[in-house]
Amino acid sequence: PQYASTGLDVWTMMNQVAASVNAVNLGQGYMSFPPKEFIKRAAQEALVESTHNQYAPPRGRPGLLEQVGIHFANRLSRPIDPSSELSIHAGANEALLSVFTAFLEHGKGQEVILMEPAFDQYTPNIIMSGGNPVYVPLRVQAGDKDPSKEVISSHDWKLDMNELEAAINENTRIIVVNTPHNPVGKVFSREELEQIGDIAARHNLLILSDEVYEHLTYGVEHISIATLPGMWERTVTVGSAGKMFGVTGWRVGWSVGPAELIQPTLSAHTRIVFTSNTPLQEGVASAFRMAKENDFLKIQCQEYERRRDRLMAIFDDIGLPYVVPDGAYYLLVNAKAIKIPSDYSFPDFIEERGENFKLVYFFIKEFGVSGIPPTEFYSEPHKHLANDYIRFAFCKTDEGLDEAAKCLQSLK
Amino acid sequence: PQYASTGLDVWTMMNQVAASVNAVNLGQGYMSFPPKEFIKRAAQEALVESTHNQYAPPRGRPGLLEQVGIHFANRLSRPIDPSSELSIHAGANEALLSVFTAFLEHGKGQEVILMEPAFDQYTPNIIMSGGNPVYVPLRVQAGDKDPSKEVISSHDWKLDMNELEAAINENTRIIVVNTPHNPVGKVFSREELEQIGDIAARHNLLILSDEVYEHLTYGVEHISIATLPGMWERTVTVGSAGKMFGVTGWRVGWSVGPAELIQPTLSAHTRIVFTSNTPLQEGVASAFRMAKENDFLKIQCQEYERRRDRLMAIFDDIGLPYVVPDGAYYLLVNAKAIKIPSDYSFPDFIEERGENFKLVYFFIKEFGVSGIPPTEFYSEPHKHLANDYIRFAFCKTDEGLDEAAKCLQSLK
Ligand SMILES: CSCCC(=O)C(=O)O
Ligand SMILES: CSCCC(=O)C(=O)O
Repeated sequence: PQYASTGLDVWTMMNQVAASVNAVNLGQGYMSFPPKEFIKRAAQEALVESTHNQYAPPRGRPGLLEQVGIHFANRLSRPIDPSSELSIHAGANEALLSVFTAFLEHGKGQEVILMEPAFDQYTPNIIMSGGNPVYVPLRVQAGDKDPSKEVISSHDWKLDMNELEAAINENTRIIVVNTPHNPVGKVFSREELEQIGDIAARHNLLILSDEVYEHLTYGVEHISIATLPGMWERTVTVGSAGKMFGVTGWRVGWSVGPAELIQPTLSAHTRIVFTSNTPLQEGVASAFRMAKENDFLKIQCQEYERRRDRLMAIFDDIGLPYVVPDGAYYLLVNAKAIKIPSDYSFPDFIEERGENFKLVYFFIKEFGVSGIPPTEFYSEPHKHLANDYIRFAFCKTDEGLDEAAKCLQSLK
Repeated sequence: PQYASTGLDVWTMMNQVAASVNAVNLGQGYMSFPPKEFIKRAAQEALVESTHNQYAPPRGRPGLLEQVGIHFANRLSRPIDPSSELSIHAGANEALLSVFTAFLEHGKGQEVILMEPAFDQYTPNIIMSGGNPVYVPLRVQAGDKDPSKEVISSHDWKLDMNELEAAINENTRIIVVNTPHNPVGKVFSREELEQIGDIAARHNLLILSDEVYEHLTYGVEHISIATLPGMWERTVTVGSAGKMFGVTGWRVGWSVGPAELIQPTLSAHTRIVFTSNTPLQEGVASAFRMAKENDFLKIQCQEYERRRDRLMAIFDDIGLPYVVPDGAYYLLVNAKAIKIPSDYSFPDFIEERGENFKLVYFFIKEFGVSGIPPTEFYSEPHKHLANDYIRFAFCKTDEGLDEAAKCLQSLK
């Protein structure tokens, strides 16, 4: 099958390129700093409890379901029944796959709409589930500004609602929304979500809302599309403890929605992995409890905003423009100004992936700071839209960012 | 899809029935005792290391790959290259799904042969991957013995090799082998594995060998089919840290085989869950290291043999015959002698699943000891073969087994 023959995933590939020159790794979105002490302690305590080492119920450990339920009840301003409107997953990725698996069938030509750039796992997950991805790109509408010369806003990356609606036909089943958006950092506005919701309602589509960066917005409000009038019934919202608590390796995520949508999602999840790991589910439950007392999410968001500002300042300094992210922890830098010598030679695995991979490879090798080629987040016909960009992650230590700044001095 | 509409999985269902009467839970195969101190400590220490909280490479943490590699090199008597012949999974279940996903395609009518009784997750995992399961039952050949009156051997459950070969056609792709076998406790002999291997080779089939109970055999030798001449090339062997170290909730499993088979398995795994959780991979790596020093696997096997003998003695005492397991930790008890009053009433979710579910439900409610209905491990045409049986797990505390003995006194 297609997903088994695409070779190396971009994450493994770019981590290897980065390691080969000992680059400052601003590529994959994992934290280069340790989780807060209270989070580590929460997990350690869970492991002391001997009963926390056996299978959790497929839906999840009761204590974690309760905490995620409280979190969503607050966010969605409605009560959540953790015994029917929630499921815990082995990471948000497995939650996404479970939703696709639950609501798509093979051999029916069903379609799922993705907005590009789209997180690279969506496409194989949809194909595995029998669906055909259909791509509608966000398009830069920055007025007179030239994004290769001037800083633009992530809000300048706009979804053309006519283009979205034109992509829908009688085979369409699901629209995937991702807000805050990876890699653009766009936080969809209420108005945009209302328009998407209207279109979904008019065509009776499900919405899969990937909100794994919900806790990270800078000066704008994160809105869950599920909270808009009439949207709860048709939306499954996915979240991630790895992202929320800075522990991407714990593999704990969740799906929330009406019981009619979560039941099939849970059935698929049960067959895919049976259940997520028990000790770290308990760890996340404790972390949620403690986070309320120490205002963790607010403080963390301020820390990330500082890291974002620091990384933007680095690129200001060397004169490469970027897209100001309103959320998440990625910065899209426009590196059109970087010229690759015509005789520069690339390994085959880069050459065959096109211009953008060559730009990113060259950047990593020459300047010792690694990023991700965002064309990996595009279907073939739209890759050209991202050819000039490199994605850098700022979920990294101050020391890492300082080092990156030093490496990039030569670009001045 | 089918797997999303089958309702409650048997594990969740029977755990709920058991809890409703506070039964001694000998149902699902999780340990009711804590893991050994050194195993818990291994995981706790992993959590202290801050770098062990972020994404592992999809293939797995290097330290765990190394340990699993050493384990298999010893078992298979050949060197293993952990960088190409191994992958770590989010539990053995996800390893199975990854193999099916890697080697089956939708819409081609490809077939996978299962030997019944077959662990209940195989069928939905095959269907999700596009395959059609084809069932060949183990058949009891116990000579003059009446299994409803006399104890028989798990080796009396035999695979008819003609029946196996007759089930193969040009659409067949994979034969699933499960040894030691859940729920029969059969440990396939070298001769049986050679015959299966011959058939696989003759028809150029892959073998998926589920050996999650490899470390638990009682007086007989566990043989991996991959070690037989010519078999390595066509076999993926799956194992489980949860089973091996008594921590079913950790969700760490693995697949091993030639690079040509593991590469697509790893690609599928990467798309299904991206990676297994990092801290408990580190915990398992340490546990492997320490287990060599304290002879853990041997001692553990003796403990399970004692538990097995204790559970068999309980059923000897009340006069219900069983199938002596040579491996794994399940006991199939023949409960034909139990008579259900004709006016006994069953809830719908039991009634609709047939005779065997009614027998197990009645047993749990009346005697306060829970088990699993093995007909869940059969396709419809073969369910009758298991109607008289109840599966009990003996991965349970001495106190639990004592309590079960007390509950069952009334059956004498
Ligand atoms: C599989 S990588 C997980 C997502 C992420 O962290 C990223 O986009 O870098
Ligand atoms: C999904 S249950 C895991 C397997 C097992 O432990 C059992 O057969 O009871």
